[in-house]
Parts: sequence; C-alpha cells; structure tokens
Amino acid sequence: MNISVIPTIQEARVEELRRKTVIVIDVLRATSTMLAALASGCRAVIPVETVEQAKELQLPGHLLGGERGCRRIPGFDLGNSPLEYTPSVVGGSVLVMTTTNGTRAIRKAEQAGRILAGSLLNARACAGKALALGREIVILCSGTRDIFSLEDGLGAGAIVDELLSAYTGSGRQGDHLQVNDFGLAMLHAFRAANGNLEGALLACENGRRLVSLGFREDVAYCSRLNAIEAAPEIADGRLQLFPTLTSL
Amino acid sequence: MNISVIPTIQEARVEELRRKTVIVIDVLRATSTMLAALASGCRAVIPVETVEQAKELQLPGHLLGGERGCRRIPGFDLGNSPLEYTPSVVGGSVLVMTTTNGTRAIRKAEQAGRILAGSLLNARACAGKALALGREIVILCSGTRDIFSLEDGLGAGAIVDELLSAYTGSGRQGDHLQVNDFGLAMLHAFRAANGNLEGALLACENGRRLVSLGFREDVAYCSRLNAIEAAPEIADGRLQLFPTLTSL
Repeated sequence: MNISVIPTIQEARVEELRRKTVIVIDVLRATSTMLAALASGCRAVIPVETVEQAKELQLPGHLLGGERGCRRIPGFDLGNSPLEYTPSVVGGSVLVMTTTNGTRAIRKAEQAGRILAGSLLNARACAGKALALGREIVILCSGTRDIFSLEDGLGAGAIVDELLSAYTGSGRQGDHLQVNDFGLAMLHAFRAANGNLEGALLACENGRRLVSLGFREDVAYCSRLNAIEAAPEIADGRLQLFPTLTSL
Repeated sequence: MNISVIPTIQEARVEELRRKTVIVIDVLRATSTMLAALASGCRAVIPVETVEQAKELQLPGHLLGGERGCRRIPGFDLGNSPLEYTPSVVGGSVLVMTTTNGTRAIRKAEQAGRILAGSLLNARACAGKALALGREIVILCSGTRDIFSLEDGLGAGAIVDELLSAYTGSGRQGDHLQVNDFGLAMLHAFRAANGNLEGALLACENGRRLVSLGFREDVAYCSRLNAIEAAPEIADGRLQLFPTLTSL
C-alpha cells in the first residue's frame, strides 16, 4: 500500500487524489478546531472557502465559525480557537466554518475517494480508519499560503508513524507500506520532535504568530497527540463522526 | 540571520537567491561526487546541463563525467559514482560534468551572491564557510525531477544543525538564526536519522534505485557525515576549492 505525504495544497494534483483516502491536515488550527467541535458534540462541520458562502449556508441552529488573519470574522459566532468549541457552545449544533488554508485543502481533496480530517489530536484514529478503508493513502498538509508549515508536517509524520505501527501490529504478510520520501522525512521529523511537540509547535512560524496574538493555549491544545479518538470524515460537504471502525 | 531550506529546484525563486549564499545539495550523487573529485586533487569541476555542452567544453586534459538514468554517458570518461574519482584518475585534471538534477540546481543558483556545493560529506565545512560569508543562507535541495528527495533533506538538516552549533559556539549576541519551517523539519529529520544515515539513505527512493543498479557502496560513501573538510565554491562557472576560512 502506498502512502504519500504532500507538503502544500499547491503541490497536490487532483488526479493523484482520485479514488484514494486523503487525510487533510491543518494542525494550527482548522482541523484541530473541527475535531474539538465534533468531540464536543457538534453534529456536523460544513467547511466553506469564503465568508459569503458561510453566511449563505447559515440556517437556524447553525453556528458560524472561522478566521481571517488568525482572528474571528466580524459577525461570526466563533473564531478558530479550539478552546472556544465547548459542549455548552456547540453541542447539538451544525457549524459552518471558513479558514484561510484548512478549508481550501478540504475543497482541493473533494475528488478523493474518502476524505478524513486529521491532526496531532487524532493521528492514531486517522491511521486506523485509513488502513481499514484499504485504499492508497495521501496525507495532504494544508501549509500556509502555499508554503510548507512545520506543524502540518509533524501531524503527517505522526500519522505515518501510527500507520506503520498499526500495519506491523496487524501481522499482515506480503504487501508492505511504501512511504514517499517526503513522508519519510516527516516521519523522522515527528520522531525527533515527539518528546516535546508543544515546544516544536511554539518554535514554528504559525506557532510564533499565534503566541504573539495571544493564542498560546491553542498551540498547547493542538500539540496533544492522540487526545481525541475519532477520525471524522467528509461526505456530501459535511464533516461528521461516522460510526467507528469496530462497528463498520 | 535568515536560513531557508528549499525542497526542490522548481520551488526556488531566482529573486529569492540574489545576494545570498546558496548551498546546492545533491547527496545522491552529484555534489557528493564533485566533492570526492576535488578532494582527490581535481583542479576544478565545470557543471553543465547537457551532454552536448559537456562535449563542447572538453579541452585537452579535461575529463568528462556524469550520468543519465544513474549510468555513465556513452563516450564519457567517468560516471557519477564518487568511488571512481580517485587521485590517480582525476588528480590535476579539470572535470566537465553533467547530471540530471544536481547540475540543474547549480544553474538555477547562478544569480546567487555566492554558491557552495554541499552534501552530508561536508556539512560542517559548508556551515562554517556560509556563516563566515555573512550573507543570508539558502540551502537548495536538488530533489529528483522536481520531487523532494529525502537524502537532500537530510543533507540540508545536517547543515542547519552545524550552522546552529557553530553560531551558538561563536558566542554571538543579539542577532539570532531564524530557520524557515521546512528547514526546521529537515533539522528534526536529520537529528532522528543521524544514528544511522546509511540506513536512511538506503531506505529512500534514490537509495533503493541505486542499490538495484549495483551502486550500494556509493550510498554508503555519500552517507559519511563530515568526511571531507572542504566547502567548494562556484565562481565563473567553475567549482573549486578556494582558500579555507582560516586563510581568508
């Protein structure tokens, strides 16, 4: 089975995503925040690219969330901080969300066979679900305005690490996992940083920017490896927690 | 001082290279082989893009070296294996060389202020010379046909590691080194792989291809960290060992 990690949205070729499982990663902070929302009981997240699209899709009972320049959009209910998405705020609701990079990455992945939302928070759950789906796996790092972002690379490396562990643990014979060179680099990087993921995230460009804007606690939250046991999937434009593997 | 690592030739913008020190890396095998040649007493390496250019530049006393598809070019004196470039073969000669990716990367860097040839073999020497030059530093990974290659990333990570060590060791105050996110990822990757660089190079795509073609010993040679104490520089189209730092 082939596993490819792609460093930025720009470098993803739509034809390379078809019929595969694509795991979209935006550790700081879009996919981490979507995960936090779903873990808090939000029923579905509808990712959209523009503020206008978000407003058009806001039905009664829907919340608007997202950011531009890391900050809450005027008129929106919520920003892009995972700490805002508590059960009392988002439980039972549908969330319409737009962010600068993460929602763009999800749109780019629309041609994929299956689309999962991944981050450090759910690396193990993502790996397990992707393996169970049995397709080739592409891990798409959102990056920041077409530049590679370290935190997404570490998230990708964490998922590759979990894929290798799960695959070895399953005792499968014959076929083996073939990881592309960029994925191997991210695997090495994750293993080196794993002792202090929070430190690694604080040292990278987006981490430093978030700290300067007062979001240091968000960086700490997003660095919590495998804190959430769920691999949400996008179907019909909605990100949801579908039945877990064991019940499939 | 800013340090940027660029993953492939395609992603390098010429305007981002101007007035900087660019370290070009093609660990498997172009820059490693050029280093081996110079360390064996070759007087200069003239990197060119095409086989035709190489033949046009072949004057008496010049040797032709290089590869297409990892193999020696018909009619050439030497291939792209560093082990061929022994003192008895290349001592005192001028080498005209063309390879698939490494020489392209050098051409792309032509607008830079200073151009060094780097690899795992001379990471420390490259870092020392680049710091002494005092310009912003760009480390350009050649990659393979516009795809990132792990071995070049590890070479870049090794140089970033040496830059940070040398900078810290110099006791400089005030200014600090700012490494871009891709460079930080390569630094982490290098540190994780450093215990077994040969194994990491054997596992990556170019390493596997070279082994399958009978060049396993080349991969072992190219993984020898800091085996060569020289940072050759390109000036007027010729790569040469200029006076070392201590004599500048």
